Amino acid sequence: MNDKRVRSGEDRLIDRFFRPLAKHPGAFNFVDDAASIAPPPGRDLVLTADAIVEGVHFLPDDPADAVAMKALRVNLSDLAAKGAEPLGALMTIALPGNFSESWLADFARALDSDCDRFNCPLLGGDTTRTRGALTLSITALGCVPAGKMVRRAGAREGDAIAVTGTIGDAALGLALRRNAADFAKLSHHDREHLARRRLVPEPRVALARAIRDHASAAIDISDGLAGDVGKIAAASGVAARIESARVPLSAAARTVLEADPALIETVLTGGDDYEVALTLPENRRDLFFAAAKAAGVPVTTIGRIERGEGTEVAGADGRVIALKHPSFSHF
Amino acid sequence: MNDKRVRSGEDRLIDRFFRPLAKHPGAFNFVDDAASIAPPPGRDLVLTADAIVEGVHFLPDDPADAVAMKALRVNLSDLAAKGAEPLGALMTIALPGNFSESWLADFARALDSDCDRFNCPLLGGDTTRTRGALTLSITALGCVPAGKMVRRAGAREGDAIAVTGTIGDAALGLALRRNAADFAKLSHHDREHLARRRLVPEPRVALARAIRDHASAAIDISDGLAGDVGKIAAASGVAARIESARVPLSAAARTVLEADPALIETVLTGGDDYEVALTLPENRRDLFFAAAKAAGVPVTTIGRIERGEGTEVAGADGRVIALKHPSFSHF
Repeated sequence: MNDKRVRSGEDRLIDRFFRPLAKHPGAFNFVDDAASIAPPPGRDLVLTADAIVEGVHFLPDDPADAVAMKALRVNLSDLAAKGAEPLGALMTIALPGNFSESWLADFARALDSDCDRFNCPLLGGDTTRTRGALTLSITALGCVPAGKMVRRAGAREGDAIAVTGTIGDAALGLALRRNAADFAKLSHHDREHLARRRLVPEPRVALARAIRDHASAAIDISDGLAGDVGKIAAASGVAARIESARVPLSAAARTVLEADPALIETVLTGGDDYEVALTLPENRRDLFFAAAKAAGVPVTTIGRIERGEGTEVAGADGRVIALKHPSFSHF
Repeated sequence: MNDKRVRSGEDRLIDRFFRPLAKHPGAFNFVDDAASIAPPPGRDLVLTADAIVEGVHFLPDDPADAVAMKALRVNLSDLAAKGAEPLGALMTIALPGNFSESWLADFARALDSDCDRFNCPLLGGDTTRTRGALTLSITALGCVPAGKMVRRAGAREGDAIAVTGTIGDAALGLALRRNAADFAKLSHHDREHLARRRLVPEPRVALARAIRDHASAAIDISDGLAGDVGKIAAASGVAARIESARVPLSAAARTVLEADPALIETVLTGGDDYEVALTLPENRRDLFFAAAKAAGVPVTTIGRIERGEGTEVAGADGRVIALKHPSFSHF
């Protein structure tokens, strides 16, 4: 058989859609089954892996470019919360029988663009079939100076609790997608904002260094603000008190909450924010806020770490808000 | 809310089944969303990722322990072919709604045992739901001395082509599983051998160092011997000639081929062998075979790299065997 017959349909698919993403020399043009990189000396590797599944993490008619961006960015968000800068990523993709080449072309183009934007080259992976739902799994590698990965455990009494960006937009975007009638009074612009925030997270890669230098603990908010801050508190052996009125909201979220204040639970627990929640010792706050400003990432103080255990969200009247499901869970 | 409410169903699932596997200190007991490891100084990281999907790479009623072993081992096989020793792995698992806890318990126990056996600690990952087929994706990290990853490109005219173990068992095991009647004359022991080889690959981790020290090119045989040796030839810009009569066969495979010689095509192209095909310069052969013997891995010379291009398999009569589908492809 000649060389041409050695090239399978899988090879041709990779040639056409993924080979252009093999820009790192250690990706070896995706010709080998493995990549090779020289880790930066004196630094620890930080490793994270997240899968996203059609019908669970994204909807079947979500645009291909948004799916690609979400798959990569949920991992970059984890790296940022750990204080790590990206080194590269590997992706496995299981495609259902009915995938279209135009879908895959849009997907690959967006992935390429995001890999460039976040300086996270695609190093390798695997393209395969599934009889079920389209499934993407990405492992992202980052690095920090030795011993400096920011953990969940590390929050201390007196630390401030802060979050990046705005909270609740993605969860409201999902509610909007499920029942547009409830959001009938929202402007087109506000709807677009919420819809976009559901589709495409904004990982806080630019803040990794400031988090590493100043935060005592951090987590990326994937399962809801209240539950994820609760995870910091539980891991650190402390209590967390969040003031609901200080939780940063987009203009769209504010409008939604004015019409239906009960949606505060969706905002606080809905998840998919992919913002970072972190705790700051008193002597680090000014430095951190200055670094965040320099990095162009908005950060807001929303509460305080206290002695004890448990996590409470206080309403504007100071009373604790009872949350039915503080944390999203697939199980 | 108290700490207990922070622990979701997902956390409890991880507690029960996966937390016992977090033995590496950098896995942080799977409490964080990321692992941290100090890469060995002066060595390159070798990174590979493979997904396995129910109904595509394994059958719905395959035992849970075999599924776990296959998921890890297909990745360890890639590392071994690249000459890399394992450092650790990350796994994402997407579970369908009907998974059983006893399945997951068996799965986790086998994964744990294999991680120990191959010195490849589980560093982290993600447990999620799917509405489709059970899907596992593993990224394995290994290391080699700087610049020493063994590639596909590197075979030269005059190199010997060698393979580890025996070829075709897994593909015959799949044929047996699909149509047991064709294998009616096979002994119980031979059937068990083929069935086992389909279910559980034997990654040649013990041979990584010898491959790195002596092979000019290598590949792990996942898509069929003929096609995968063809990939070495294509990447190296040379021709490969395999002598069918020298391809190492198990006693079971020999018995099958005696009854039905046409199954040679299944042996040569069926895939899922997870043996290593490699090329050896003349001055490296004795050293390599001695190292393989010391490592306890059987290795057989099956052919030769020649000038030109293309890959041929010659039958016992010297004539080229025409192969319909030299390489397995999902697309």
